[in-house]
Amino acid sequence: MLLAIDAGGTATRCAAITEDARCVGFARRGPANPISSGLPVAIASLAEAAAEALAQSHTPPQDVHSVTIALAGISPGAALDEGIEKALLSHGIRALVRFDSDAMAGFSAGTAAESGSVLISGTGAAAVRVQAGHAMATADGLGWLLGDVGSGFWIGQHVARAALSHLDGRGPETTLTELLLATMARSTSPDTATDPSRPPQIMRILTSTYAARPVELARLAPLAFDAASVGDAVAGAIIEDAADGLCATLRAVRGAMHDPVVATGGILAKQPMLRRAIEERLCAVGESVNLISVDDGLTGAAVLALRATGISVDHTVHSALGASIDEARRLATTN
Amino acid sequence: MLLAIDAGGTATRCAAITEDARCVGFARRGPANPISSGLPVAIASLAEAAAEALAQSHTPPQDVHSVTIALAGISPGAALDEGIEKALLSHGIRALVRFDSDAMAGFSAGTAAESGSVLISGTGAAAVRVQAGHAMATADGLGWLLGDVGSGFWIGQHVARAALSHLDGRGPETTLTELLLATMARSTSPDTATDPSRPPQIMRILTSTYAARPVELARLAPLAFDAASVGDAVAGAIIEDAADGLCATLRAVRGAMHDPVVATGGILAKQPMLRRAIEERLCAVGESVNLISVDDGLTGAAVLALRATGISVDHTVHSALGASIDEARRLATTN
Repeated sequence: MLLAIDAGGTATRCAAITEDARCVGFARRGPANPISSGLPVAIASLAEAAAEALAQSHTPPQDVHSVTIALAGISPGAALDEGIEKALLSHGIRALVRFDSDAMAGFSAGTAAESGSVLISGTGAAAVRVQAGHAMATADGLGWLLGDVGSGFWIGQHVARAALSHLDGRGPETTLTELLLATMARSTSPDTATDPSRPPQIMRILTSTYAARPVELARLAPLAFDAASVGDAVAGAIIEDAADGLCATLRAVRGAMHDPVVATGGILAKQPMLRRAIEERLCAVGESVNLISVDDGLTGAAVLALRATGISVDHTVHSALGASIDEARRLATTN
Repeated sequence: MLLAIDAGGTATRCAAITEDARCVGFARRGPANPISSGLPVAIASLAEAAAEALAQSHTPPQDVHSVTIALAGISPGAALDEGIEKALLSHGIRALVRFDSDAMAGFSAGTAAESGSVLISGTGAAAVRVQAGHAMATADGLGWLLGDVGSGFWIGQHVARAALSHLDGRGPETTLTELLLATMARSTSPDTATDPSRPPQIMRILTSTYAARPVELARLAPLAFDAASVGDAVAGAIIEDAADGLCATLRAVRGAMHDPVVATGGILAKQPMLRRAIEERLCAVGESVNLISVDDGLTGAAVLALRATGISVDHTVHSALGASIDEARRLATTN
């Protein structure tokens, strides 16, 4: 028995996988990003998801061969290693723990190929070229302050900036302002600062934004797609700029043109408008691409877990594995 | 006797001014921004600068009529009010304390007029329309996350982003990369993270930037001007975009075209290239402007102190006051 975990900033998913590549247990828990959620929360989410997926499979803990965890971020520290081993042991699971990147899991969720590229736009944004099963080159993924062009944070920050430019007369009118103010109305703080030389709406946006962590601007990204879909020019330009940025990020790592390109992360998975804009741009310059869209990296984490054990995953096995995980997920949601 | 203080994020300046508008004492101390330096440091800088300028004027503390403090930021809280009164009292100064904005001080440093506009680009960026001695409208000044277009932070962030785009293959080559890496070499951290799929220079820039406060990116702004002056196209485009942004900010508040426009803040004061770019842009659309450049708001704080006492400051008095403050500053620097 192998446990495969896709650990994200909003949710953690675990699949219990047999050595013949069938999913026999599935569990979902809260966020498990050690940086944004904190180490204790991340460790608890990971261990609980593992224990529940295993319980569903009716397999004794001593039969677990390894736990493969796909995680965003650079490199897990020793504190995470030790913490997760201890937490798994408290559930009776004494197994080899392996870490992999969210990019490798995303890529392997979309294709059985071992070379190609993956383009991610979730809260952050990056592209990785995969060769013979290893991450060979990364572009962007530099965080909200220095990069992440075309990410949820980036789009959300542009939404807020566009609305504020409209409100204080620096920029053109946009329906984003109304959409943003409607979001803020649900969360107005009594501590809003005042300035007689500014409209009160501006002070509301300022106070609530600076009270939160910068990355929370990512929550505003869907407003850009809503406004663009009803023809707002300012929102349309934000999405075009995001698509331009993501194309540059993908091009910086993309290898042979016939290699598969997987698109993943909350923004790319949920916004077909952005995927189409990227495909059109690359097509226009003769770099035709057919993005393989995946919702998350759980199937990929399972593929990585199987391959690490020496089990080969070809196209047929990949399809069956994906279908079996999707079925387990569907059952978990309806129960 | 009036004390006028220009309190900034890097330095605090105080002038002791007689009621016939002559500067008879000058002192300089460390930063006094209550937000970036913390309240105790700010209060100590303000009170020490006041006490030293007064000592130089050979005036007894009981002859001080008022202390006028020009400060960046929205509104000083009660803790600052009480703290500064107590600290001044410990130096024997029991006087009326008045607060004014850095924008009003900057405007009044540049002109004796009571209506016009001021455009600021220092760490942040904003424009304010002044009418009959009051701030009537503010554009931008929304901080590093939501605005400050064309500020030192904004330019510095674009410098770092351009260098990183060059390094990971997303963007064009630029001499900014070399200039940025030379800056980093002086401050390399031993904790630099590693990632085999990225060049080590990228990891150095990431580690040192995220270890500091975001606004410290403002320190990189001068690199854009250095690179643009030797013909770097990427740096030139950053400065043109900054000038476009600052023009939009000024236009959003500017009143009658013949009213004076004062330019201030560390970036606008020290970078004639940016002032010229703004003048050219406005000239090209028939909104001709002759920016009055001032280094800081000390003369303006003195003008506001005199006017608050009912003393009128016309063009002649303004010129003489400015010259007398500059002379006191010069003496303080050479001693």
